[in-house]
Amino acid sequence: MTFRSPVSEYEFMLKHIVGFEDVSATDLFAEASDDMVTAILTEAGKMCDEVMAPLERPGDLNPAYLENGVVRTSPGFADGWRAIAEGGWLGMSAPQEHGGMGLPMTITSAVNEMMSGACLSLQLAPLMSQGQIEALDHHASDALKELYLPKLISGEWTGTMNLTEPQAGSDVGALSSKAVPNGDGTYAVTGQKIYITWGDNDFADNVCHLVLARLPDGVPGTKGISLFLVPKFLPDDNGNPGKANSLKVVSLEHKLGLHGSPTCVMQYDGATGWLVGAEHGGMAAMFTMMNNARLGVGGQGVGIAEAAYQKALAYALERKQGKTPSGGIVDHADVRRMLMEMKADLFASRAILLACAQAIDMSTATGEADCKTRAAFLTPIAKAFGTDTGIRVADIGLQVHGGMGFIEETGAAQFCRDVRVTSIYEGTNGIQAMDLVARKMMDGGEMANRLMDEIEELAERARPTHPNMAEAVWQACESLREATDWLVGQGDLQNRFAGAVPYLRAFARVLGGHYHLMAALADKGGPREKLARFYIKRMLPEHVGLLQHAQEGIEGAMALTLDELAS
Amino acid sequence: MTFRSPVSEYEFMLKHIVGFEDVSATDLFAEASDDMVTAILTEAGKMCDEVMAPLERPGDLNPAYLENGVVRTSPGFADGWRAIAEGGWLGMSAPQEHGGMGLPMTITSAVNEMMSGACLSLQLAPLMSQGQIEALDHHASDALKELYLPKLISGEWTGTMNLTEPQAGSDVGALSSKAVPNGDGTYAVTGQKIYITWGDNDFADNVCHLVLARLPDGVPGTKGISLFLVPKFLPDDNGNPGKANSLKVVSLEHKLGLHGSPTCVMQYDGATGWLVGAEHGGMAAMFTMMNNARLGVGGQGVGIAEAAYQKALAYALERKQGKTPSGGIVDHADVRRMLMEMKADLFASRAILLACAQAIDMSTATGEADCKTRAAFLTPIAKAFGTDTGIRVADIGLQVHGGMGFIEETGAAQFCRDVRVTSIYEGTNGIQAMDLVARKMMDGGEMANRLMDEIEELAERARPTHPNMAEAVWQACESLREATDWLVGQGDLQNRFAGAVPYLRAFARVLGGHYHLMAALADKGGPREKLARFYIKRMLPEHVGLLQHAQEGIEGAMALTLDELAS
Repeated sequence: MTFRSPVSEYEFMLKHIVGFEDVSATDLFAEASDDMVTAILTEAGKMCDEVMAPLERPGDLNPAYLENGVVRTSPGFADGWRAIAEGGWLGMSAPQEHGGMGLPMTITSAVNEMMSGACLSLQLAPLMSQGQIEALDHHASDALKELYLPKLISGEWTGTMNLTEPQAGSDVGALSSKAVPNGDGTYAVTGQKIYITWGDNDFADNVCHLVLARLPDGVPGTKGISLFLVPKFLPDDNGNPGKANSLKVVSLEHKLGLHGSPTCVMQYDGATGWLVGAEHGGMAAMFTMMNNARLGVGGQGVGIAEAAYQKALAYALERKQGKTPSGGIVDHADVRRMLMEMKADLFASRAILLACAQAIDMSTATGEADCKTRAAFLTPIAKAFGTDTGIRVADIGLQVHGGMGFIEETGAAQFCRDVRVTSIYEGTNGIQAMDLVARKMMDGGEMANRLMDEIEELAERARPTHPNMAEAVWQACESLREATDWLVGQGDLQNRFAGAVPYLRAFARVLGGHYHLMAALADKGGPREKLARFYIKRMLPEHVGLLQHAQEGIEGAMALTLDELAS
Repeated sequence: MTFRSPVSEYEFMLKHIVGFEDVSATDLFAEASDDMVTAILTEAGKMCDEVMAPLERPGDLNPAYLENGVVRTSPGFADGWRAIAEGGWLGMSAPQEHGGMGLPMTITSAVNEMMSGACLSLQLAPLMSQGQIEALDHHASDALKELYLPKLISGEWTGTMNLTEPQAGSDVGALSSKAVPNGDGTYAVTGQKIYITWGDNDFADNVCHLVLARLPDGVPGTKGISLFLVPKFLPDDNGNPGKANSLKVVSLEHKLGLHGSPTCVMQYDGATGWLVGAEHGGMAAMFTMMNNARLGVGGQGVGIAEAAYQKALAYALERKQGKTPSGGIVDHADVRRMLMEMKADLFASRAILLACAQAIDMSTATGEADCKTRAAFLTPIAKAFGTDTGIRVADIGLQVHGGMGFIEETGAAQFCRDVRVTSIYEGTNGIQAMDLVARKMMDGGEMANRLMDEIEELAERARPTHPNMAEAVWQACESLREATDWLVGQGDLQNRFAGAVPYLRAFARVLGGHYHLMAALADKGGPREKLARFYIKRMLPEHVGLLQHAQEGIEGAMALTLDELAS
């Protein structure tokens, strides 16, 4: 059993669920015709299935390691990187003038999801480069762009993001790295950074670090932070890697999963860097990168969910136990329940992910504020629900395997280990939820209500053919609206934060019902309608408990003193 | 931060929640006075904290391994085993005539839970021996008892259970191991067994295997299975280990967790064994062992939940991030929510576990059918909810740690890895749920309704002082009653099985509300009342979605064809 990229599923999604025709109808993305998209997804899928998927297990068994200050990558990863680069998948959404493909983020998201399902630890490398390409494209000087973008897009060089410091995790503003002007337009960057994904490798000619640091006149907190491009090797006059910069990999972390992805502690000792964006404007530049990285991480969750589902289904079809029609455990009621839950949530999380990506594309192509707001609103949901689904589906997949699930060679456990960090990095899912109920509701709930209007409109359209399903979605949406009103009415943000995680999950549950209903309408009497019915009748009702939790506020959550918590 | 056994919590539970005074009021357990119980729990807790907890991490880093056919155990585990044996913890509930302590299962469950929290991979060794002691005590001949029980209770010898074969996992009746009479009262046992926990070690003089196999005249299926005691070394005339038996450890599994616990593939090649119990009565004998082993595994989940909670809380108190009253992340609303959920479910799962153990004790002491039925009904709930809680609480604990949670040296990830198998072994949680809705409801739901009567009676008593909490528990119980009626009314068991897992979880949720309400009544205005309020308002509502799922039946669950599942 090997991973098979779900190309036809994306085609269905693009056509029937997320309205990709609106994207290809724009001038900017006019080239993204159905045929071209199919060709691209097929080509990417082939690379994922044939090149990346076979690297997943070796990467786990032979982790990246540090040798004389250089990261040695897992067997085959260098070839995998070259295949990704040669396919053009680093620059999928990058500008064509620098060698990119200029594809919509919707397509990039689908491809990134496939790559994640095939080999998550390797996929992190292109994801980091993509983010850096985007940040430089938006914020770097023309000189930096001309030098770096072609190399990053071709895969000759790789990119990283350096935010976290030991004392500054979720609280980025607490960072203490410094940057001092050298007087020649460059800066001397000094500090230690942790959790640097793919902080080094042995397959690229250069590794380009985007580093957050504070200028001498930078105020404390996030407003005094600037962004610097700090390459491992300083480019010479021809733009080729020259002298080594004053930076090094101190150590690699020993992690629960993602063993093929080196997570580095980086030390910068007066390393030469170039300012990206405005002085003290580092957070803005970083957010360009992080917003889409959040979407990318959501896609990692969906990708692992796909891979875990495929593996669990294959096992359930093959494993004999007791007397059943097919002979396989797939016919046992509880095994089937597990598979259906996996498949139904896989669909829901993927729909939300691609809907968010579509909104980003519409925003990019049209500049309409509504599209931008929609994308911003959906991003934390896509990230948190995508990764929670990845974690949950991988966990159910392990359970489907019974005792074999606990044995590493089966591979089901690796999905659980690898995907586990996705609910933590790029902003924990708790932070995503707080972002949703605070910043994304500074409009008084307007965007939330606009989405809910759409959900109810579709439910109304579905009533004639699917009365029960339509009513269930409509009612769930009404409950969500009440909870939203309650949240928006809370002046004390702590009251929102105490229920933020259950609220976000409830919103995702309702959105999932919405997209499932849409699929049922597109596939009357077909398997998608049956899957939608399963989801709406058995999984959507989870929103009831979640929304009750969401509206309880801070008081009861803080009721125990610290001593009482410990006793 | 090191593990601290929650002795005072057990004292509260015994006194206020599970009615341990009824147990110590029986003749059989008259010795189990409050003082004696406190002394025992304190002594056990000291051993867990000081001897076992320090072995948890080394066991993970230095897994047991196979060397020339012999299992070499993790550093310090031999000393740990001796401490367990010398404390008398192997024979806690064993008969005093053979050197046991004759303690109630309630106390044994508490001690087993502590040991699990301290070092789960080592705790599996005494759990296996306890099960074997019990099985031999109930089913073996006097001669076998006299020879084996003292050695097993003293810890000179260890015990194992051998059920599973590659083709016979959950379907034990499909096993193919054979036993042929040797003509001298012994049998020649041949076959391969997998997943044999602590199948060998280097600290005991002998390893005693209880092996399920089929006699030549055994019918196919479970009714043709017999149980045999097959020692690693054949006892000589003085009862000392003599000639090596014809059995061997073929290999050890490479597992997600529990690296300190050797999981063996065992090969028996005409090994000499002795019949335990009646010919073809192996399943009955095995079930004696398995029922209490299920409770023990539930306790493993609760124990890991305790350990994971302690570690997460310590981290949340210590880790600074942003500006908060205490300076620690414990003051962040979402971190506090996570800790409260952990603590509230820890309480609920422990209460259910100990209530089940108490029912076993009352059944043993009084022989009353009602107690036996109650214990049998609560066992699958205690097993499944205890282990699901262990898995969930460990997962939340990892999340509390943020990025550090993904780094192995933190230890939060190890809890997740170690506890993960508990929802699989001793009957998967799906099988527990099917047992609950089928066998345990063959009485037409009588026992379920008796429990629900008690829940509603308590709720009525609580109304004057806790009207909202009482009403919430009462309403939830009514919903559970409706769902129970629906399930009992389904002649086609498949309709019950399709919703068995959500039904079991809903039952546990309501029971959790019941015990929390009891705690609130015992601690008016105190922290337990506040924790109860958190649980009842924010977590109990989960039952709504679960019960809706539970009553949907088999049809929609099987709606997709196998091809449709794969597409």
